[in-house]
Amino acid sequence: MKLAVIPGDGIGPEVVAEGLKVLTGVVPDVQTTDYDLGATRWHRTGELLPDSVLRELRGHDAILLGAVGDPTVPSGILERGLLLRIRFELDHHVNLRPSRLYPGVSGPLAGDQAIDLVVIREGTEGPYAGNGGLLRKDTPHEIATEISLNTYFGVERVVREAFRRAARRPRKHLTLVHKTNVLVHAGQLWSRVVEEVSMEFPDVSVAYCHIDAAMIYLVTDPGRFDVVVTDNLFGDILTDLAAAVSGGIGLAASGNLDPSGANPSMFEPVHGSAPDIAGAGVADPTATVLSIALLLDQQGLPEAARRVEAAVAFDLATRQPGSTGRTSAIGDRLAALASS
Amino acid sequence: MKLAVIPGDGIGPEVVAEGLKVLTGVVPDVQTTDYDLGATRWHRTGELLPDSVLRELRGHDAILLGAVGDPTVPSGILERGLLLRIRFELDHHVNLRPSRLYPGVSGPLAGDQAIDLVVIREGTEGPYAGNGGLLRKDTPHEIATEISLNTYFGVERVVREAFRRAARRPRKHLTLVHKTNVLVHAGQLWSRVVEEVSMEFPDVSVAYCHIDAAMIYLVTDPGRFDVVVTDNLFGDILTDLAAAVSGGIGLAASGNLDPSGANPSMFEPVHGSAPDIAGAGVADPTATVLSIALLLDQQGLPEAARRVEAAVAFDLATRQPGSTGRTSAIGDRLAALASS
Ligand SMILES: CC(C)[C@H](C(=O)O)[C@@H](O)C(=O)O
Ligand SMILES: CC(C)[C@H](C(=O)O)[C@@H](O)C(=O)O
Repeated sequence: MKLAVIPGDGIGPEVVAEGLKVLTGVVPDVQTTDYDLGATRWHRTGELLPDSVLRELRGHDAILLGAVGDPTVPSGILERGLLLRIRFELDHHVNLRPSRLYPGVSGPLAGDQAIDLVVIREGTEGPYAGNGGLLRKDTPHEIATEISLNTYFGVERVVREAFRRAARRPRKHLTLVHKTNVLVHAGQLWSRVVEEVSMEFPDVSVAYCHIDAAMIYLVTDPGRFDVVVTDNLFGDILTDLAAAVSGGIGLAASGNLDPSGANPSMFEPVHGSAPDIAGAGVADPTATVLSIALLLDQQGLPEAARRVEAAVAFDLATRQPGSTGRTSAIGDRLAALASS
Repeated sequence: MKLAVIPGDGIGPEVVAEGLKVLTGVVPDVQTTDYDLGATRWHRTGELLPDSVLRELRGHDAILLGAVGDPTVPSGILERGLLLRIRFELDHHVNLRPSRLYPGVSGPLAGDQAIDLVVIREGTEGPYAGNGGLLRKDTPHEIATEISLNTYFGVERVVREAFRRAARRPRKHLTLVHKTNVLVHAGQLWSRVVEEVSMEFPDVSVAYCHIDAAMIYLVTDPGRFDVVVTDNLFGDILTDLAAAVSGGIGLAASGNLDPSGANPSMFEPVHGSAPDIAGAGVADPTATVLSIALLLDQQGLPEAARRVEAAVAFDLATRQPGSTGRTSAIGDRLAALASS
């Protein structure tokens, strides 16, 4: 497996090191190439994602990203110039974000909650398309627009992938989350596509939920969700809440997939570069290790993926309450568990 | 006070009756006119909001709405034809949504949470402007757009109102919630306006939070929020979550305000018409009564508003755990407390 690695900034390199420890423990033949991208490179050279690097990334089987950013980079620079650019250039239309409340992990909700859902967030269009503009900028007559672009092509392929994944899960339940009663144009398209594609998946039960109502359910009855399919912006919002109620973004994994295989998919923990604890060796690499499980699954190694996820589940269930441990100790333990 | 009343459908008339009981208990001189709008009227006549009714509504000091809708009305009809039409026609640009976790109320979050925040949601533009369309409808080449419109005029007036309200609160803290790193055009406008207006309110501390991060904070540290200002769609999403973590939308009040006074403001509980319990006399009228408090405050009767809110706080703190009570009994109790 040829893996491009973008360690990034802050705790990025620390968690990536542990992820690779686990990965190389379960797959003997991993060939990695490091790419120096992120805040540090931008400060030094002004470069975000040179075309030559993008070309090289394309030559790999997959990409692993730690985290990028530091407080001195103006907001939006790395997001649009690096993270979103990769998602759009490599056609990462399936943004896969599972949320599971593992035994032993206490979330912020009271009472017993069984959370095991996966959000399939569209990754290449919607309000993230970058369309929009300013008229009469910096005057009292300024108008700012943001245009959400939704294509049948783009919606159909992500909805189909969501149905495929729902069909493989025990509960076989898919929920479309949108705001069809207000965003009627996009809402019509999403609803029509879900209805159409559902015909091909008679075993999958389908539900619809407005984004605002989804907020309520995620804190009062998260167990109702199995597979959720939604647009780029709703997915951004929903997955942070789903992560928060299942133990925090410190445990949240994600995959930016091009399931067609035409481009390498990219795997990354949802958390940021956490500059406040960078270098201290205390960052929890679990979200990165869970992202490795997603990577293995996508690379056609579901057995290895299951072993990595089981290692995480075991580790979380048996950690001393309140203890977090050192980054490398957790990585060692997970690597040993996964390869045992 | 000349009050237009739209009882609506389902539990709407039931909760409105209790709201009026409380209102007339604290203000002697209320003259009400009922307007039959909602699902029932639409089924009977096909009418949503006749122009003549809209004209009559304008002649009142304020509007009280219960809830509209039933499961047989296609999604979007009443929302856009009635609720949003009123907000837009009557220039309800300040959508006021306080969330407070009252003593005695248990929310879904574990641990002690002190929640006392108010979201000021823009109400007349953003993605709710109704702009957008479909190209190549119902074909595999369909494109659906939704356009978020943000004007300096529209953003400035709601941001200013948010600062005004923040300045009157003990903590004097205002948070802008947006997604400025992705929705850069609208984000720039909102950020610029907050910065500009903040100059006039040196006592108010200002923070910024991405909408996705706000999700996390609302379930892990909701106490950090005091006044939140945000756009129409983010406000829709945020306020349902804020309501959920502070006891549920059964307690959530809202005001759709035109602070200029040019148009009557409208007050409504955030919950819907709950057809499943309609007519049973068990709906909790508390959200409507709290909306009455907002109405009183906006009508220049802050003393009476405080009495109504104190009555609710007392009632919630002393209710038997788990008991909900009958709609009219709760209304009687709140009316007696508020006018005592
Ligand atoms: C960093 C930002 C551009 C990104 C997004 O909005 O998609 C992040 O919030 C995420 O969810 O991966
Ligand atoms: C009914 C719907 C149009 C409305 C909205 O989206 O504003 C509701 O969710 C609300 O929050 O008042």
